[in-house]
Amino acid sequence: MKNKREESLSDFELDGRLARDSDLVTVLGLCQLRILKDSRWPWLMLVPQRNGMVEIFDLTPLDQALLAFETNTVAAALKEATGATKVNVGALGNIVRQLHVHVIARFEGDPNWPGPVWGFGQAVPYDEPQKQDFLKKLIEAL
Amino acid sequence: MKNKREESLSDFELDGRLARDSDLVTVLGLCQLRILKDSRWPWLMLVPQRNGMVEIFDLTPLDQALLAFETNTVAAALKEATGATKVNVGALGNIVRQLHVHVIARFEGDPNWPGPVWGFGQAVPYDEPQKQDFLKKLIEAL
Repeated sequence: MKNKREESLSDFELDGRLARDSDLVTVLGLCQLRILKDSRWPWLMLVPQRNGMVEIFDLTPLDQALLAFETNTVAAALKEATGATKVNVGALGNIVRQLHVHVIARFEGDPNWPGPVWGFGQAVPYDEPQKQDFLKKLIEAL
Repeated sequence: MKNKREESLSDFELDGRLARDSDLVTVLGLCQLRILKDSRWPWLMLVPQRNGMVEIFDLTPLDQALLAFETNTVAAALKEATGATKVNVGALGNIVRQLHVHVIARFEGDPNWPGPVWGFGQAVPYDEPQKQDFLKKLIEAL
């Protein structure tokens, strides 16, 4: 029999577009940590496993604190794993409303630098060894 | 004689470009709350009053928690004051490195919707009554 927490997690339904555009890396305390299917930038996404959330302030105060902690932990690990010039963190949701937070490693001269990544050009798929190499470094830094 | 806290705050030096592009609304516990000089979107910015910070994870754990609390409080007030379709929250800093967090009210059909606001077109100044009307509603919601 599942306990309350497992039930709560298994009831979570990930938006279909987020599922299509990213792969699961691991599950943190609150969030799914996912990697975007776009090799142009090392681009991660945190999705709080709570149904019906749109804005960060829709979360309970505890979940807001957890989201901030997990976002900042992932951002620091991404900086360490990639040596990024700057980490970009953003919760937009203009297209997909399910609450999700982007964490992206940026480098001088990368596509659309110093502009934002959202809505720029077309995704370029990873080759699998490149993705695994990045994720290995990320997990070590986490 | 100033106490420690006043000294600490008065030692804070705001980046010149952030100062040029925005006006102070009020000072929260950690952050300056500022309004961008761009009437195309209701666009606020929080700047933690700590020198030398670039990434959110450069802040102490307490300041990270304060920043999350103040950001989410401002985002909720901005939603209430404007009836925004979606609030966009982002910490990019690719151009100005001093840590600052954008909080923007977005509406279907607004300039560059559903894309991001950063780097899009040219700022359109407020007329003063329009700005005061917005800030009055914002302060009431805060």
